[in-house]
Amino acid sequence: MQVERVCIVGLGLMGGSLALALRLAQRTAVTPFPRHLTIVDTNPNTRTAAERLADVVTESFADGVAQADLIILATPVRTILAYLQLLTTLRPSGCMLLDLGSSKVDICEAMDHLPEPFQAVGGHPMAGKEVAGFGAATPDLFRGQTFILCRTQRTTEPLEAVALDLIGHVGANPLFLPAHLHDEMIAVISHLPYVASASLMRTAAALADERLWPVSASGFRDTSRIAGTDPQMMLDILLTNREAVLLQLAQFQAQLTAVAQLLETANEDQLLQWLNETQNEYLTYRMYKSQSLIGPRITDNG
Amino acid sequence: MQVERVCIVGLGLMGGSLALALRLAQRTAVTPFPRHLTIVDTNPNTRTAAERLADVVTESFADGVAQADLIILATPVRTILAYLQLLTTLRPSGCMLLDLGSSKVDICEAMDHLPEPFQAVGGHPMAGKEVAGFGAATPDLFRGQTFILCRTQRTTEPLEAVALDLIGHVGANPLFLPAHLHDEMIAVISHLPYVASASLMRTAAALADERLWPVSASGFRDTSRIAGTDPQMMLDILLTNREAVLLQLAQFQAQLTAVAQLLETANEDQLLQWLNETQNEYLTYRMYKSQSLIGPRITDNG
Repeated sequence: MQVERVCIVGLGLMGGSLALALRLAQRTAVTPFPRHLTIVDTNPNTRTAAERLADVVTESFADGVAQADLIILATPVRTILAYLQLLTTLRPSGCMLLDLGSSKVDICEAMDHLPEPFQAVGGHPMAGKEVAGFGAATPDLFRGQTFILCRTQRTTEPLEAVALDLIGHVGANPLFLPAHLHDEMIAVISHLPYVASASLMRTAAALADERLWPVSASGFRDTSRIAGTDPQMMLDILLTNREAVLLQLAQFQAQLTAVAQLLETANEDQLLQWLNETQNEYLTYRMYKSQSLIGPRITDNG
Repeated sequence: MQVERVCIVGLGLMGGSLALALRLAQRTAVTPFPRHLTIVDTNPNTRTAAERLADVVTESFADGVAQADLIILATPVRTILAYLQLLTTLRPSGCMLLDLGSSKVDICEAMDHLPEPFQAVGGHPMAGKEVAGFGAATPDLFRGQTFILCRTQRTTEPLEAVALDLIGHVGANPLFLPAHLHDEMIAVISHLPYVASASLMRTAAALADERLWPVSASGFRDTSRIAGTDPQMMLDILLTNREAVLLQLAQFQAQLTAVAQLLETANEDQLLQWLNETQNEYLTYRMYKSQSLIGPRITDNG
């Protein structure tokens, strides 16, 4: 199947950055992809800002998706789930679907249950900022980052080829993961850090002494940064990955309780061991990151 | 009292950066400060690296402090406490003392009990890196940062003038705080973030799946950065600010438990309120930081 017409639904940080990257690729690539780009967004300001970014910019989901070969759903997760329902009526003969939602189990299950003519794969580019919206979008947001793909019962080889081609166009590295493993990993590597960062911010603010801020330095700046994440976006994320987040939050609390106990008893040897272990784990992670710019890794055996 | 001879004890990140900044000031300032600099460090490699940085570089604490007008103790806190004891014997006629230790209650109490001829003030420049040691020291580490001073029973006006002069030379902004308030604030703004960052790192590493690292992005990078902090340094810090850290850790755990409960019950309205409150607190903090480059703030009414 030739993908000529692409429709991006939702022009936030993710959808907007994808649109910008595809627009750039359209101008510079030998084989322009896609030939025709439609953008759907409910915000009139965003539509005005995106006017020159696509061939068609529309408020209407039904109009926007009507002729698309590939629809990329880039809204919050719960909106994606609603759109997947609508598509069975709007596109009875099916089409290709990719989403950019930040939790995958619910979306991939919904994709599993789409009628046969649909081809669908879950996606999640691992790039983010604490600032949301099209205003923060950049064409290089995905460059060098990992772009996770989660296969569903409706994932086909032609769709995989299209998705990998698109990932190549935005400069990301594809990584296939089962949806449940994706959600567990994202809970520990992204959603838990948000909850921790937010709770740190609240603990500091509870001191209610503004002399605290001049005292704060780079350590607090970095650990608190994602506490500024857009609340509506985070609400959707936390509620759609609730169980995995709660599990990791319990693990995190157990870690805190363990180190609190070492401090309570002022157990110097064991505390030093805890600190050494932690630093080693940090160094392993950093070593991996410093070596990870080599190229794409594709695995799916979780 | 004219301060001509300064001795810095301990050439780690803090002492080393101070020595570099003073050396730079010596070369460029209209009134060079200090005229004579002695450095004491127990590490032979550090002494070799620091050879050209001072007039005298010595391994011997007794030799180094013998003639100093101002001694700056820049070792870990527990070593500072030991040195304060030694000084009563080594310098029976007293001298000026400043320290750069990262917790202040124990040190300021020890300073309170120094014999009358001593003049002593607690200090803590709010600049840090996750990398320790002289190798990470830079002359601009303190530039634009807050340099906390904690008055003791041995703090005099001449010493305050000397300390403020020194802080001016390194480009920092002085802030006077009572020692107990310093320790509480540092617990929440620096030591708790370390414990949270370290516990996040351990929670992630416990998944024991190396596909986790390509999945991690800037959120985890920033929240985990200080988990790499030098274990020996952190051991000293946590043990010498144990009670304040335990108190803030309990507050932090209460925040986590509260948000876990909102997630458990999937209470959308209250969760959104929690997220909004948190973002507002973050924005207040960032607004303060963006306005805080105006100049020195001196208060001491905590």
